[in-house]
Amino acid sequence: MAIPTTPPSGFRDHLPDACERRWRLIQTIAKTYRSFGFQQVATSAVEELPVLLGKGGAENEKLIFKILKRGEKLEEAKASGELADMGLRFDLTLPLARYYSKYGSQLPHPFKAFHIGPVWRAERAQKGRYREFYQCDADIIGTDDVAAEIDVITAILAAFQAAGVQPDVLLNDRALLLKRLGEKGVPAEKIGAACVIIDKADKVPADKLKAELKELGVADPEALLDLAPVSDPRLSEIVASVNAACGRAAARLEPNLVRGFDYYTSTVFEFRLPGAAGSIGGGGRYDRLTEAFGGPKVPAVGGSIGFERLLLMLEEKEGAAAAPGPDCCVIVFKGMRDTAIALAAKLRDAGLSVDLYPAEARISKQFEYAQKKRARFAVIQGYDEKAAGTIKIKEMATKIETEETLESFLRRAKT
Amino acid sequence: MAIPTTPPSGFRDHLPDACERRWRLIQTIAKTYRSFGFQQVATSAVEELPVLLGKGGAENEKLIFKILKRGEKLEEAKASGELADMGLRFDLTLPLARYYSKYGSQLPHPFKAFHIGPVWRAERAQKGRYREFYQCDADIIGTDDVAAEIDVITAILAAFQAAGVQPDVLLNDRALLLKRLGEKGVPAEKIGAACVIIDKADKVPADKLKAELKELGVADPEALLDLAPVSDPRLSEIVASVNAACGRAAARLEPNLVRGFDYYTSTVFEFRLPGAAGSIGGGGRYDRLTEAFGGPKVPAVGGSIGFERLLLMLEEKEGAAAAPGPDCCVIVFKGMRDTAIALAAKLRDAGLSVDLYPAEARISKQFEYAQKKRARFAVIQGYDEKAAGTIKIKEMATKIETEETLESFLRRAKT
Repeated sequence: MAIPTTPPSGFRDHLPDACERRWRLIQTIAKTYRSFGFQQVATSAVEELPVLLGKGGAENEKLIFKILKRGEKLEEAKASGELADMGLRFDLTLPLARYYSKYGSQLPHPFKAFHIGPVWRAERAQKGRYREFYQCDADIIGTDDVAAEIDVITAILAAFQAAGVQPDVLLNDRALLLKRLGEKGVPAEKIGAACVIIDKADKVPADKLKAELKELGVADPEALLDLAPVSDPRLSEIVASVNAACGRAAARLEPNLVRGFDYYTSTVFEFRLPGAAGSIGGGGRYDRLTEAFGGPKVPAVGGSIGFERLLLMLEEKEGAAAAPGPDCCVIVFKGMRDTAIALAAKLRDAGLSVDLYPAEARISKQFEYAQKKRARFAVIQGYDEKAAGTIKIKEMATKIETEETLESFLRRAKT
Repeated sequence: MAIPTTPPSGFRDHLPDACERRWRLIQTIAKTYRSFGFQQVATSAVEELPVLLGKGGAENEKLIFKILKRGEKLEEAKASGELADMGLRFDLTLPLARYYSKYGSQLPHPFKAFHIGPVWRAERAQKGRYREFYQCDADIIGTDDVAAEIDVITAILAAFQAAGVQPDVLLNDRALLLKRLGEKGVPAEKIGAACVIIDKADKVPADKLKAELKELGVADPEALLDLAPVSDPRLSEIVASVNAACGRAAARLEPNLVRGFDYYTSTVFEFRLPGAAGSIGGGGRYDRLTEAFGGPKVPAVGGSIGFERLLLMLEEKEGAAAAPGPDCCVIVFKGMRDTAIALAAKLRDAGLSVDLYPAEARISKQFEYAQKKRARFAVIQGYDEKAAGTIKIKEMATKIETEETLESFLRRAKT
């Protein structure tokens, strides 16, 4: 039986043009984070299960792709016990908290980190929702100063701007929200469930949410879905400073904002593009996450760019741009491969990217290949040109052909 | 109980300086591959198990980190059957063969691909041998022309050269080797096992290998460990062209070279640094790999840079260089955060990378931070400077302090 050629459901391959776009967007974001003084960190893709389960327990467990134990341990586990010992990370925040708990003393204080890489979630795959996707996080660990929120949000907004979009940022305080829900008469044990419902406000119609809240036993669902504006000095300072820093009214308060993960302790924020549903990033303050690793409580705040969604938005806005091809494709004359290889090397030494057809083939076939690869120039040196010390050039777009010296060609090719 | 702060055995985190070095090396390799006309591909980290098992069967199975089934399927599997449905890729070649089988018709022909990313192997972790590591592959799919071997090997040698090392490349033909072993009297059913032993020739003492071969039932182990030089027109052409292309005698024939994976069908090669044990990369021709996916047999050749080993070699040779810090660190005066943020934005607009202490802190503490972050300049604008339209600069290395206009500072900072 033939082996499947498609990746597993929810996983993806990327064709070369898409790879280029992904690669360039990652570089843009990394460059911006770096320009704000954030330093790159990297953690293993695989974590011990307790790291991933953390305090989140059952909620987190559903997200984890678990890795089967191996060898003897698997045989033991089959009889009784847990079949998996490790899992794939489902976000970059838990691994960062572990990382900081281990290496904190070797790092600058406060530590401004950025973390870019794939995460995996064992959720049902849907259109636009994948089980393997990239996140691009910026975090500041070691201070509860509101300046950290301002710095993280400003850096992420700058990365979005460098990528070509200008999202708004909505802010709320999770602790404040929980307190307000209590004041609205939601019983303490139902506040968590009420939050999950409120969090869907931008995706689910209000009537449906009201019904869900009613079912939960909330007396006045209306009041929960339309909370009065927040008034909080910390949040107001973030809004004012972020807006001053980015030179536009990007930040505003959103009293219903929750954010999914329950590791957030106060500030939460979300990036949204005007006119588009859903978010393209978000984050918050997680002051208690390092406690779980046995160390002291270290205040921290961080945010994440939803890389896949941002890429999709950019492709919708700008079109899925084809990657530029090589500067030259050297056409190989029969029996003259070494001449072609030497010419290609000279062109590369001059800083050009140079393709070469990797087989014997008719000249016409090689021109088709140069076209398909979107080379700017086809370059040929046959017996006559070699004797004359020249090369033949065909500019692929205009089809203009010239014969000239290498030096003369390099002068115009490098412009 | 506290959650562990170390990654699982054989997995690693990377501190910021190491991340910088990894990031830059990946960019160097990608840029070189691109300059040879190779196009980037990306495949999912997770594959269906049959893709990973392929023809390799038991040998491959030992390498795979398997992913536990989820939900109902897991419950069914517990009673009877296979507990895992997917696994982490252990190389980039099998995924590429799957990728080409699916997308081949949309790609240029022949297809020159490069593929950079992590792979995972469920082997016992040892010093310098990890269970998660990067590979950097270059492959040409769609031609059995020896020109493809020359192109792949030349591109990989150029990437090594760009990274700062000049390895030799050793070549052999696996089919030829198998034939020769048969001629030396090794029974057909033992040729595979004999290959595995011969392959260890650069790591294990000859006496031990001879004993192993004897145990296998080989009559004359001596002859197997010291095969006469290979004489093969294809291999000779590769050696001559590769040496001409890279301008040094990098390539030579090695009659005992095997390479581990049994998907190689003829040419095999390995990159070694003179004076260093083991290889820093290798590859070969795998003309039958796409057959497993139900498509036609497509000839292919590819090679891989052993990224982690290369990085280690570079660090041993050049030292583990500290990453450069930001150009500036703006010192924040109490109550003047917005002034500092605005100044930082102006410096960034001029192309500089600018850190900012993300909290209220004494000036002396902020200078310590700037030092720790290896900033080139500390930049301050207090009340007096703001009134005078100037900024104060401290060059961190020389401790020289100046007061000047932003324009004057930018002129010298950008050199």
